[in-house]
Amino acid sequence: MSFEITKELLETVTSYIEASNDTALISYFEEMHHADIAEILDELSFDEAVYIIKLLDSEKTSEVLMDVDDDVREKILKNLSAKEIAEEVEELDSDDAADIIGELSEERQEEVMSQIEDEEHAKEIEELLAYDDDTAGSLMAKELVKVNENWTVLKCVREMRAQAEEVTRVHSIYVIDNEGKLKGRLSLKDLLIASTKTAISEVYIPKVDYVFANDDLDEVSNKMRKYDLEAIPVVDDEHVLLGRITIDDMVDVMKEEADKDYQLAAGIVEDVEADDSILELTKARLPWLILGLFGGLGSVFIMEGFENAMNKYKELFFFTPLIAAMAGNVGVQSSAIIVQGLANDNVKGSLWKRLLKEVGLSLINGLVLGVILIAVAPLMGLEANLSYTVSISMLCVIIVASLIGTFVPIILDKRGIDPAIATGPFITTSNDIFGIFLFFMIAKMMLHF
Amino acid sequence: MSFEITKELLETVTSYIEASNDTALISYFEEMHHADIAEILDELSFDEAVYIIKLLDSEKTSEVLMDVDDDVREKILKNLSAKEIAEEVEELDSDDAADIIGELSEERQEEVMSQIEDEEHAKEIEELLAYDDDTAGSLMAKELVKVNENWTVLKCVREMRAQAEEVTRVHSIYVIDNEGKLKGRLSLKDLLIASTKTAISEVYIPKVDYVFANDDLDEVSNKMRKYDLEAIPVVDDEHVLLGRITIDDMVDVMKEEADKDYQLAAGIVEDVEADDSILELTKARLPWLILGLFGGLGSVFIMEGFENAMNKYKELFFFTPLIAAMAGNVGVQSSAIIVQGLANDNVKGSLWKRLLKEVGLSLINGLVLGVILIAVAPLMGLEANLSYTVSISMLCVIIVASLIGTFVPIILDKRGIDPAIATGPFITTSNDIFGIFLFFMIAKMMLHF
Repeated sequence: MSFEITKELLETVTSYIEASNDTALISYFEEMHHADIAEILDELSFDEAVYIIKLLDSEKTSEVLMDVDDDVREKILKNLSAKEIAEEVEELDSDDAADIIGELSEERQEEVMSQIEDEEHAKEIEELLAYDDDTAGSLMAKELVKVNENWTVLKCVREMRAQAEEVTRVHSIYVIDNEGKLKGRLSLKDLLIASTKTAISEVYIPKVDYVFANDDLDEVSNKMRKYDLEAIPVVDDEHVLLGRITIDDMVDVMKEEADKDYQLAAGIVEDVEADDSILELTKARLPWLILGLFGGLGSVFIMEGFENAMNKYKELFFFTPLIAAMAGNVGVQSSAIIVQGLANDNVKGSLWKRLLKEVGLSLINGLVLGVILIAVAPLMGLEANLSYTVSISMLCVIIVASLIGTFVPIILDKRGIDPAIATGPFITTSNDIFGIFLFFMIAKMMLHF
Repeated sequence: MSFEITKELLETVTSYIEASNDTALISYFEEMHHADIAEILDELSFDEAVYIIKLLDSEKTSEVLMDVDDDVREKILKNLSAKEIAEEVEELDSDDAADIIGELSEERQEEVMSQIEDEEHAKEIEELLAYDDDTAGSLMAKELVKVNENWTVLKCVREMRAQAEEVTRVHSIYVIDNEGKLKGRLSLKDLLIASTKTAISEVYIPKVDYVFANDDLDEVSNKMRKYDLEAIPVVDDEHVLLGRITIDDMVDVMKEEADKDYQLAAGIVEDVEADDSILELTKARLPWLILGLFGGLGSVFIMEGFENAMNKYKELFFFTPLIAAMAGNVGVQSSAIIVQGLANDNVKGSLWKRLLKEVGLSLINGLVLGVILIAVAPLMGLEANLSYTVSISMLCVIIVASLIGTFVPIILDKRGIDPAIATGPFITTSNDIFGIFLFFMIAKMMLHF
């Protein structure tokens, strides 16, 4: 029963569009989940996608808009009037509505906002737009079910039914005081079991996890994961309940973050997918390659400086890719562990201890690799003094590379820069240069050239 | 109000343990969330952790056990008797119970299973243990709320209250027929609104997403994400309802997968954290470094074969780290995009088209980089014929590297091997060797040495 896009399905849809067979299209999409429609739109031409968005009811298309690829949405929004966008936005929860509007130019934002009929909705969207990206406030929705601690269970159920109309999933019912401050929570299960005359203040659970609107999203996601929460209330500095974040939105954020970090580690600067256009893929990939090119030219420059060693020790030059690879690999390993540790908040203890640990680790790795190299060298016809030189300088390179890999992300993090950018090509390239320089310096000292 | 581990906190706990002040410890942990206790245990010495696990009630410690680090849990379990483990397991939902038991040796598994008093629970655990890792069956819990389509709302609410006792979070209520086959679902909200005499068959929603017990977890997670599901029922081939997977468990799996893929891309073979011991970190890092070492020796071997070019074109040897870096970077970029695309199920279209696209992309990137190189070369005192040679062979290397990066993961995936292992050092190392070989071959043809 899984939905799958087939060639036949796409042909059916395009043939309906070509024939302007609107009734057939409407009934075709009638029962379909918005996420499935979005997948179809991603595969259609842009004109066809706009045709369908304009044709279907905005109750349906608003959700579809949230699910299509970013670039498809951007193009569709460009083709809708402010009035049409406002209609879509009216159907969406405040968080999704704010996301859509946030993607528009400032001028268009104002146009669309002025066209939204529901004033309260408009005010909520305005409020959400004011939060910085990556804060809890930017991800929360204003829609939630809240009850006053002074109500009875009966009044609560009645009010709740009204509120629940607007809320897709209830999760927890939040309990507030007369000033709107978060006091605790109630579960639907508790409410099903309690007698109708009981006061809420007697049955609610005062222990409730919450986050502040300005908290970082990483913190929110760590907390939701740690405590297995499906929704978390968001409060302001005075503990007034502002909104809530649900797990499905958090899952999307986590997935995006993980994908982005993975791509950064692989030297891809923009969020791209395998099926994006060649131009988009080039834009995402070329910057790090250019950096790599200049890094490579840097090592050419360094080696030119040691050219005089070539007559006597030409083998040293055969070893430069090996040294560069080791420096790069070690650096990437160290940085990946630190970047992940920073994100998961488990990098503890002093920097001094961490330094000692990295040096210890590199010593072990470097010694093992050095011994292997010395053992293998005779088979490759390498002289003993050369294989010792290469092994010892490789050991030093590994230590320095792991320190760079460890401390660059830590320093970036301390300065408030996303440490994930310091993985992949950045570390590889800088370690290549450092590694080759160090290699020749140590070789020079040992072999006296 | 966020929980945070401080030095004082740890000192308090250890001082209570040293003084065997059990009452103080029990009251200290009384109100604490199991995830917080687990965090404390991760920081304590192993003996201290065991002390606390043995001291506290198994209702609490069973959840703590689920939350501690894998290595801490392993050590604690080794120190508990089969009887004690059985007591912990009795308190857990079937999925968590199966996870714990699955970590024991086969011999111990039998011992523990025979000590579980609740026979039904034991049977459920046995059933879950039979599923392969990475299948929906291995992640599902048997605990859920299900009602028969022939019941009335009243009977349903009554039965549900009894069932709900055992179920931490209700999410959906699943509707089955007399044969136990999944027919649809009900939400708590629907039940709150419906009149008590209505038959369930009249109010349930027949549209329900589900997965088969043997479905791959990737599929399950993509489906839950796509449709924003908070729980999904798991059925057998005859559509009989077997259990359900909740979003909190899926989030943990997603997070683990993302962390694992990130580490694989960075050349780390085992799941490690920044705070693991040096030995564990070495075990995780050394294997890929050894591979890198042999890869590097491979390029030494290749360059020895082109040694005769050194007299006339020594600069070629200065360029090998640059060529290796480009081949590595391009390969990692291509493989990362494909690996991610495969995981997210958005690698569509024919292999032939993908090949053309990669070649096109590499041509653009390679040409841009080549032009930059030719422009910069004179500044580095490089002769024109050399800079053209390097540019053209770099272009070829980039094309080949991107094809290797693209097709190795695709081939692995087709053969049922996790394509994520083909990223990072694997691609870098093989592309280093290929790249350097190709570079010298093309240079040889162009410069006739």
